[in-house]
This record gives sequence, C-alpha cells and structure tokens, in this order.
Amino acid sequence: MWLEENERIDDLEYKGLKIIQNKNEFCFGMDSILLSDFAKNIKKDSKVIDLGTGTGIIAILLSKKTNVKEIIGVEIQPQMARMAIKSVRLNELEKKVKILEEDIKNLGKFYSRGTFDAIVTNPPYKQIKTGLQNENIGKLISRHEIKCTLEDIIKTSNYLLKNNGEFYMVHRPDRIVDIFHLMRKYNIEPKLLKLVYPYINKEPNLMLIKGIKNAKPFLKIERPLFIYKEDGKYTEELLKIYNKKGE
Amino acid sequence: MWLEENERIDDLEYKGLKIIQNKNEFCFGMDSILLSDFAKNIKKDSKVIDLGTGTGIIAILLSKKTNVKEIIGVEIQPQMARMAIKSVRLNELEKKVKILEEDIKNLGKFYSRGTFDAIVTNPPYKQIKTGLQNENIGKLISRHEIKCTLEDIIKTSNYLLKNNGEFYMVHRPDRIVDIFHLMRKYNIEPKLLKLVYPYINKEPNLMLIKGIKNAKPFLKIERPLFIYKEDGKYTEELLKIYNKKGE
Repeated sequence: MWLEENERIDDLEYKGLKIIQNKNEFCFGMDSILLSDFAKNIKKDSKVIDLGTGTGIIAILLSKKTNVKEIIGVEIQPQMARMAIKSVRLNELEKKVKILEEDIKNLGKFYSRGTFDAIVTNPPYKQIKTGLQNENIGKLISRHEIKCTLEDIIKTSNYLLKNNGEFYMVHRPDRIVDIFHLMRKYNIEPKLLKLVYPYINKEPNLMLIKGIKNAKPFLKIERPLFIYKEDGKYTEELLKIYNKKGE
Repeated sequence: MWLEENERIDDLEYKGLKIIQNKNEFCFGMDSILLSDFAKNIKKDSKVIDLGTGTGIIAILLSKKTNVKEIIGVEIQPQMARMAIKSVRLNELEKKVKILEEDIKNLGKFYSRGTFDAIVTNPPYKQIKTGLQNENIGKLISRHEIKCTLEDIIKTSNYLLKNNGEFYMVHRPDRIVDIFHLMRKYNIEPKLLKLVYPYINKEPNLMLIKGIKNAKPFLKIERPLFIYKEDGKYTEELLKIYNKKGE
C-alpha cells in the first residue's frame, strides 16, 4: 500500500488490528495500551475525542475495545496524522475513527462546547525545560510540551466535554500534583487513579487517571498494576491487558 | 502511678517506650507508627510540632527515632492531653517532648511565624458530613473534622513552618486531591508520597505525604508499602518498621 520511507506495518495482536509506524519517529508504547484498557468501559454510543493521537493507536484500539459511536483523533504533526489516517484505512475503520490534523488549541473552531462524552489523551510528558532534547523534532513534539502544555489539554477538555463527561489520561507520577491542580481548576474532578509499578518493589513510572466533569470530590485509588514479576516475565494482569494468556 | 479509670499502660516495644491509653477513647493505630517511621529522617536539632498529638504517640516515638531538639505535641482534648503528659513523664521525656493543650487554630498566639523546622500530623480523616457518627465525643473529635478541618491544619502549618520546613502527614487516599490542592494553596509543595496497601492486590487504605514549604514542584511516589503477605502475616518491611525481625 502507501507506505512512505521508513514506515512499517506492525501487528497489534488484538482483533486483527494493525498500525503504521515510522521507525525514525515516535512509536507507541505500553502507556497507549494501558490507557486503551483503562478507558475500555466508556459508555456505548459515546462520542470520543483523542487529544494528540499520534499514530492513532488509542483511537484504533478503542474502536474495537468499546461500543462507542465515533472517535476523533486529533494530531498536530502532519506526518503523524497522515500515518494515522492510513492506519484507519488499513483497518477499515473509516466509519468509526476520524483523524483531524489540527492544533488542539484550535478545537473551539471545530466543535461547540460540550460536544463529547469522553476524552482520552496520552500527552507529552515532559515540560519544555526538562529532559534530554537532542532528538528529531517529531519526537520532541511527542514527548515535550512544545506545541501544547498540560494546561492547554485540560482547559480544552473542559470545553469539549459534556457535563459528567469522562476524561482519561496516562501520565508520569511526578506530575500528579500539577494534574490534580489543573483538573480541579477546570472542573474535571479526579475520580480514579491507577498507579503502574514496573516491579512490586519499585517506584511507579506511569499513572492512569479518570476524571469526570463537574463531579463531586472523591478519588478512588485502585489496586496497583505491576508490569513484571520478580523473574522479569510479564505479570498475568499485564498479559491479560495485552490479550495474551499467562504462561 | 496516676492512671484514671479505664486507662492502661501499653508497651510500644521500641527502645523501652510506653504509652498510656484509655480503652474507651481513641487509641493509636498503625497510621501513627507508619508516620513516625516516615518522618524518621527529620534533621538533627530540628524544632518539631505534632498537630493533634492525641496520646502523644508520634511525639514520643520521634523523640527516640530522631535527634531532634524539641517536639511540641498539641492536643485540643483535655483528657487526651492529660494522658499524653503522663506518658511523657512515664518515659522521662520531659526535656524533649512538651504537650500543649490547645486548639491548633490558636497557635498564632503562642508561636511567631516560621518557628518550626518540621511538622508531623495524623489529623482526623473524615469530613463532618461523612461516616458513622454514633461514637463518644472524644472518638468523634479524633476521627472527624469537628474541631479542625484539613484546611485549618495546612493553613496553620504554613504559618508555623520555616522556609523549606518539612511537613509530614498520614491520611486516607480518597482525600489526596483535596490535600494536594490545599498544600499548594498554602505553599507547602508535595514532594514525596508513599501509598500503603493492605495486600499486594488491594486498594491502598493509607498514604504518607511529605511536603516542603516554598519548594519547587516535583513529586516522587515511593515504592509501595504492603502490610500483609498473601498468608496474612506481616511483610518483612512492616516488621522492620515495628522494629521486629522477620520470621
């Protein structure tokens, strides 16, 4: 088909889904898989938007993991958006998944307030001033808050979400205070938190957060998710998320 | 000695320390032990205040677990304060531990701004409107935000702490959003979070938080603390905190 240089088709090993990635650009990681699983109970017939969809991985997985009506994946980088569009076609998901090449800060021009039932987002984790930055510009944009900040995402989410709409995000634990602060500032109350620990005796390196617009305060922290067993093999829970049986 | 009706002396099984408790009133729990351990690296010669000291358990344990200069335990309930004073005498800690029977909202009359290097607190966990309230008034005050709210404690802590002073608190995970919100409001930046899970596959039921006054944002979430092993026995880590060797 229409692969460009350095692009390849990867098998998602889930209901026959495939994804196009460019080996020189940002490729999806475990965080996308975990977020898709965390958000799998989004209500039937929901209208969903994925802010910063990248390769389209989360939108594509959710199209098969849920019974939502429509998923819009928004991506600012033209090359990534093009790859995502090709992956949607490759999986014959054009009716359910739409890719919009746009800056999330401009979404007010496309959608009226309260258009969406649910938002999913795997945003850039790093603030501009932090971390190594000697990468190509595409990876930089995917990983660092160059084109949009955490505040842009949460502010936009408040605008896009219906009253009681659901917000699902994966992020790094070290930003939890900023995240809770901004979610409350924009009336998306944190309701559920799941911490992801690589090993049982290690610090968490990812977290999954669900918020609800205009909900009352009360956060539930779920039981921990561990990635590896002591012997370095994946845990049963992780294999289940990856749709594989334990060994 | 001077025990009142229903009071008894319990052995803390740590460096010979003992504590007086009243079987009809609020007795110390594992949360106090965990907070004392979490705060054990408070710097040498620090001036420390324990807001809501109850039986004095945390102040008394910290006097032996640290090399601080002085610990003030503040308690609003006269009977509890009296018991705490007796426990201080019983352990011959009068030079290091002082008990002050006072409302923490009045501490501005006793201490000038920035008097303390560190604060420890095991406050009432429940908001007034929530939870069962058919208890005696002493237990109600210890468990519910009747005499002081979370905001009173954090606002007072901002007043009492020096610049870069340390704030240590144990609380329930479901209040984490409120806690982070209030800590930031009163310039005590959350820097360290430890979640306590009863079992490896259960939701956390306690959390330990360290904040630093006027620090820059960056929270570290520590590796999890598990209380019980699958067989229902205490984990090695918990036995170590209790100063007992593993079996």
